[in-house]
Amino acid sequence: MPRIDGARVVADLKRLAEFGRYKTGVHRPTYSPDDVASRHWLADQFAAAGLVPEIDGIGNVFGRNHIATRHLLVGSHSETQPYGGWLDGALGVIYALELARAFAADADCAGFGIDTIAWADEEGHYGQMLGSRSFTGAVGEEELAACKSRDGVPLADALEKAGFAGRKREEVDPARYVGYLEAHIEQGDTLESSGRRIGVVEAIVGIRNFMVTLTGQQNHAGTTQMARRKDAGVAMVRLAARIHDRFAALAGPRTVWTIGRILLDPNAPSIVPGRSDMQVQFRDIDTAKLAAFEAALYEMVGESDRAGPCRAAIAPMSQVEPRPMDGVFQGAIEGAAERHAPGLHLRMPSGAGHDAQIVSHRLRAGMMFIPSINGVSHHWSEDTSEDDIVLGAQVFADAALAILKAG
Amino acid sequence: MPRIDGARVVADLKRLAEFGRYKTGVHRPTYSPDDVASRHWLADQFAAAGLVPEIDGIGNVFGRNHIATRHLLVGSHSETQPYGGWLDGALGVIYALELARAFAADADCAGFGIDTIAWADEEGHYGQMLGSRSFTGAVGEEELAACKSRDGVPLADALEKAGFAGRKREEVDPARYVGYLEAHIEQGDTLESSGRRIGVVEAIVGIRNFMVTLTGQQNHAGTTQMARRKDAGVAMVRLAARIHDRFAALAGPRTVWTIGRILLDPNAPSIVPGRSDMQVQFRDIDTAKLAAFEAALYEMVGESDRAGPCRAAIAPMSQVEPRPMDGVFQGAIEGAAERHAPGLHLRMPSGAGHDAQIVSHRLRAGMMFIPSINGVSHHWSEDTSEDDIVLGAQVFADAALAILKAG
Repeated sequence: MPRIDGARVVADLKRLAEFGRYKTGVHRPTYSPDDVASRHWLADQFAAAGLVPEIDGIGNVFGRNHIATRHLLVGSHSETQPYGGWLDGALGVIYALELARAFAADADCAGFGIDTIAWADEEGHYGQMLGSRSFTGAVGEEELAACKSRDGVPLADALEKAGFAGRKREEVDPARYVGYLEAHIEQGDTLESSGRRIGVVEAIVGIRNFMVTLTGQQNHAGTTQMARRKDAGVAMVRLAARIHDRFAALAGPRTVWTIGRILLDPNAPSIVPGRSDMQVQFRDIDTAKLAAFEAALYEMVGESDRAGPCRAAIAPMSQVEPRPMDGVFQGAIEGAAERHAPGLHLRMPSGAGHDAQIVSHRLRAGMMFIPSINGVSHHWSEDTSEDDIVLGAQVFADAALAILKAG
Repeated sequence: MPRIDGARVVADLKRLAEFGRYKTGVHRPTYSPDDVASRHWLADQFAAAGLVPEIDGIGNVFGRNHIATRHLLVGSHSETQPYGGWLDGALGVIYALELARAFAADADCAGFGIDTIAWADEEGHYGQMLGSRSFTGAVGEEELAACKSRDGVPLADALEKAGFAGRKREEVDPARYVGYLEAHIEQGDTLESSGRRIGVVEAIVGIRNFMVTLTGQQNHAGTTQMARRKDAGVAMVRLAARIHDRFAALAGPRTVWTIGRILLDPNAPSIVPGRSDMQVQFRDIDTAKLAAFEAALYEMVGESDRAGPCRAAIAPMSQVEPRPMDGVFQGAIEGAAERHAPGLHLRMPSGAGHDAQIVSHRLRAGMMFIPSINGVSHHWSEDTSEDDIVLGAQVFADAALAILKAG
């Protein structure tokens, strides 16, 4: 069995968190100087573990094992959310590094190689899951040329500045790999609140996003009598309340939905809003459930439009299909968890998106979760106990070996 | 009877609209170079009409009649909303100028003097109704020192740049005046939609503004299960929908209410909102109705807070009491309207705030409205037909004389 050096895992995570350190978290947006420096540091660590390092044309950092005959690709992303946590992404990359070292040191693992990967821009500073999508061949040159950061910086300029421009973008060789394995913090509190320490991801949820726009007529809030108003704010709050009621009635046990963004125009206290936009999002691992939510949403928007006095329109913004994780991979993770933490593991969906869902289109894929303290995520205060980090690494290593053996 | 020169009124309005012209409207924020130039131009016109001009330390432009023995103060504000209309405020100032000229030319008006006034900053670029409040003694030096524009420019700097710093701020001498009379565009479509041409303002509505804050817990929109959420956006839309229902049931025939400003925090599509702020405003001329709305609002916020899972809190932001207009002034306007436009006048509240409500604390006051095309206001496309402008000026002049005679 590969033996994890828990202290080394924690030390490497802490060292990686120095790049862009912010309070107890990290601010390391993709292609920022801190991100570029951390990718070079990771390449050096991969080399020190006996792997051949490469940073490709999108910033993905690879470590390739040229000795083994069967390979598992293991990793996660290494950039962070703005002022985000120290483990989101980083955990899976350092676990991969540790697995490469542990496998190399263990006779049981002879012939089995861990290829490490630190994906670029899963967090979408320039484009959602840009690195893993590039690796699976899903990113064309036109998309790259059009890609800009949230601040309007063209991706091409960022890659040039990072020193990655002009390099080849690596694409997956499905023949090389048994599959792809990713560890991540849960980012929710399902494990913590149920007293479990390992999550076996069954599927990554599908996500559908819609923009709902209500158009009325902007008017003076003092001189326009109620009967004459076409208040897009009133129409929005009524429709939003109905959406929440209807979705609650339709929901499965793990469906989630969110109206997270609302804009009134002009959003002034003494002006009747002439327009309102709201983004409606829902997630489930069941495509039929997603379709039912979508149909209900279109129906409610249509009812609002017909009822007047405001017009209501809906447009899809994005759609990601649910991705089941490989059954053999799930079994391997569960078996390893049962050995090291009997009874303290749970099969669960991932409510957040991950590179594994992208890679799963080209390779068999699996994911393992460890707990997040209080379920905090995308915030510098995100954390996980060192005990859970170390246990997770050992379970993950055992699972990787089981997957490679099962082939 | 004082005879209005309708062509001169329209020409002066068009000349004044050249200062800061924007499309068919005007962009002339208080103390901007265009506003300052227009105030000097107005002072010149007042002088040419035989009045003694003065621009005081807050930018109010006075024209004083030093010949007559009984005086009526007549005017409105001369700055505009950002990219606003050419008549909002300006109409009442040019009417005042025309009245001064017509009275001076008419033997019937001997002994009766029109003092003209162009108030500064009714529109609140620096402080709501700053000029008329200064004139009534309601603005202390502390308020002036703290006053800033929406862009953060200190009032003191703006006055310095305008050339008004260091001048005395004039205060009302109640013994000098029979009262204050103001003409304004309606800013709504009550007159137009009922086929009337003159509005006799019975009262200016009271306005109460509240900030309602919902506090939940910010979370990841994918990993946080519905049962664990404290979504401040959900709490907001439900409470807002209830407020609209309850207010509709409580409302009088002319009550208006508006939730014009809503902010979610952080207002991102994939984040469960942790906080939401909304501004709730209502207006009526009946103080008892305002009190009933306020009690209902506090009750609903309290219910929302007790129901959870989000906390709900409410804080008053501003309160303006309804101001009835003087009965004699109303009768004079109505009598003049009946002479020039029989049956085409209407007693009505003003749903918008005006300088007259401020001045009414120190002088008897009255207001007259003329129609707004399509009820458009606070927009460069605001307009009124020339026929209505000219008719209004004549009615206004007759009303002023009747008021001075009634004394």
